[in-house]
Amino acid sequence: MARTSDPNKLFTAAIAGDRGSTARLLSLIERGGEPGRQVGRLAYPNSGQAYTVGLTGAPGAGKSTLTSATIAHLRSLELEVAVLAIDPSSPFTGGAILGDRVRMQDHATDPGVFIRSMATRGHLGGLSLATPEAVRLLDAIGRHWILVETVGVGQVEVEIAGKADTTVVVVNPGWGDSIQANKAGLMEIADVFVINKADRKGVEETRRDLEQMLELSDLPHDSWRPPIMPTIGTTGEGVTALWDAVLAHREYAESSGQLAKRRAFRSRQELREIVANRLGERARQICTGEQWDQLTEAVVGHQIDPWTAADEMLGGIVA
Amino acid sequence: MARTSDPNKLFTAAIAGDRGSTARLLSLIERGGEPGRQVGRLAYPNSGQAYTVGLTGAPGAGKSTLTSATIAHLRSLELEVAVLAIDPSSPFTGGAILGDRVRMQDHATDPGVFIRSMATRGHLGGLSLATPEAVRLLDAIGRHWILVETVGVGQVEVEIAGKADTTVVVVNPGWGDSIQANKAGLMEIADVFVINKADRKGVEETRRDLEQMLELSDLPHDSWRPPIMPTIGTTGEGVTALWDAVLAHREYAESSGQLAKRRAFRSRQELREIVANRLGERARQICTGEQWDQLTEAVVGHQIDPWTAADEMLGGIVA
Repeated sequence: MARTSDPNKLFTAAIAGDRGSTARLLSLIERGGEPGRQVGRLAYPNSGQAYTVGLTGAPGAGKSTLTSATIAHLRSLELEVAVLAIDPSSPFTGGAILGDRVRMQDHATDPGVFIRSMATRGHLGGLSLATPEAVRLLDAIGRHWILVETVGVGQVEVEIAGKADTTVVVVNPGWGDSIQANKAGLMEIADVFVINKADRKGVEETRRDLEQMLELSDLPHDSWRPPIMPTIGTTGEGVTALWDAVLAHREYAESSGQLAKRRAFRSRQELREIVANRLGERARQICTGEQWDQLTEAVVGHQIDPWTAADEMLGGIVA
Repeated sequence: MARTSDPNKLFTAAIAGDRGSTARLLSLIERGGEPGRQVGRLAYPNSGQAYTVGLTGAPGAGKSTLTSATIAHLRSLELEVAVLAIDPSSPFTGGAILGDRVRMQDHATDPGVFIRSMATRGHLGGLSLATPEAVRLLDAIGRHWILVETVGVGQVEVEIAGKADTTVVVVNPGWGDSIQANKAGLMEIADVFVINKADRKGVEETRRDLEQMLELSDLPHDSWRPPIMPTIGTTGEGVTALWDAVLAHREYAESSGQLAKRRAFRSRQELREIVANRLGERARQICTGEQWDQLTEAVVGHQIDPWTAADEMLGGIVA
């Protein structure tokens, strides 16, 4: 179709299966602002069917290979799947550049697979706002299995991965050092542990480590105890069992009411973030223009204190 | 005087020299909110005389000892001095707990010295807003030399220390590893480098390291080249020369117009932060109450999308 930038037309085309339109809608979400919000409003009523699986782990843990093997497994079950690869540290974006995701490109021509990498690209609320929005879009156009892979184990990555319905934390044999920085954060979000590259030595020690940490931690997921699944991403070994563990967690989460609770919590959190984000945008609007210039000069010239100046700029907004 | 919490009365008493009133005003600033802003409005017209010297460096670099030796030097010159010890990571506050600042307590009974440690204590804008406010209060009550010591070399610490008129970065012989994480940030803010604990070996290597880094960096301070001063905080050796370097930088900054430029930049930046902070407070007000509860339930129940819900909550605030 023609290169329209009208969200309504793009959305209709995306639902009809046009991948280019889906990509453009995701770009609008990534960029934020009013067009991004418009996409969000369009997608929302049609969303609510998808199940999201988050994958996170230290760089080099083999997440992309594992994701690719998982895609292959889902395709063998004749399921369609979408993958969002979130990289907060990368300036690259748009699905065109998938970094070292060579393995994933095996699926690039499969119409049952949609892969997209996302970076910040100036989205004002950052990826933590853009990601759930992107998930809802993919959901609304009929992708009901969505994998959200985050690169790295920093605060943002863990936060984004932890917002999935089931979160898979990928470690390697002898993992300790690579995730030391955010071990607690990872323990908290994990619904399933994967020991990937399980053909290397140290698998049993790593399993014992994880089990010990699970013993020591107050498990936040009530009676669900994260299983520890060994995999070899490159050969696909263990991936079927991993996916079964994901499905077992889904069943637990649905039947126990945990899923509904988590989703409600996420909704509230997101609304809060959106309010803060919208006010942040307003702040940037306020801090510009003629009145702003005059007041800043008065503050610089010591003629007015900054609190009074801010009150003047904020007019009736702040009581 | 009686334990009033009226900023006006406290301010009058503080100007008359009552240290308890000064301490209480600083607590109001630390806590933020309308009383804190009121202190800010009172102090502003009387401020503008003080000169601030920031000190930062890795924990263990001997900043407190060096600050104490600097106080002693200033007192020998019959100057009065105030010290703000800023610790973003500490829940302690109020000047009562000065951590391991035993050396500084040597000056605790000297009326020419005022020492206060500050922590976040829920100030909404955090210490980066509270610190310039505290500086203006001390300035307004007649303390014209203010040392701002920050503990640590994280982003916040470096930012706060970098807002001084002259910024001193303290390293030790063999410093490399301790500040690796934020070397660039420290290089950028340094007006004067100190190699403290210069009785240890490695002083010359450290000097060469620093000089090499100065060569490689685009010096942001025009023609001022940060001098590198060896000191031994525990004996006071080198402290007179260090202070002379601070005075030399002050003279340069004043005569070149750099000081006026920097202060104007800081004013603008602070006004921007205050606007963002006030809107943030407003966001927290908005995200509570009956309408908020109803809208969040509607979002959770998938009856309204979060963007539309946010727009409703924000009413006329956001266009």
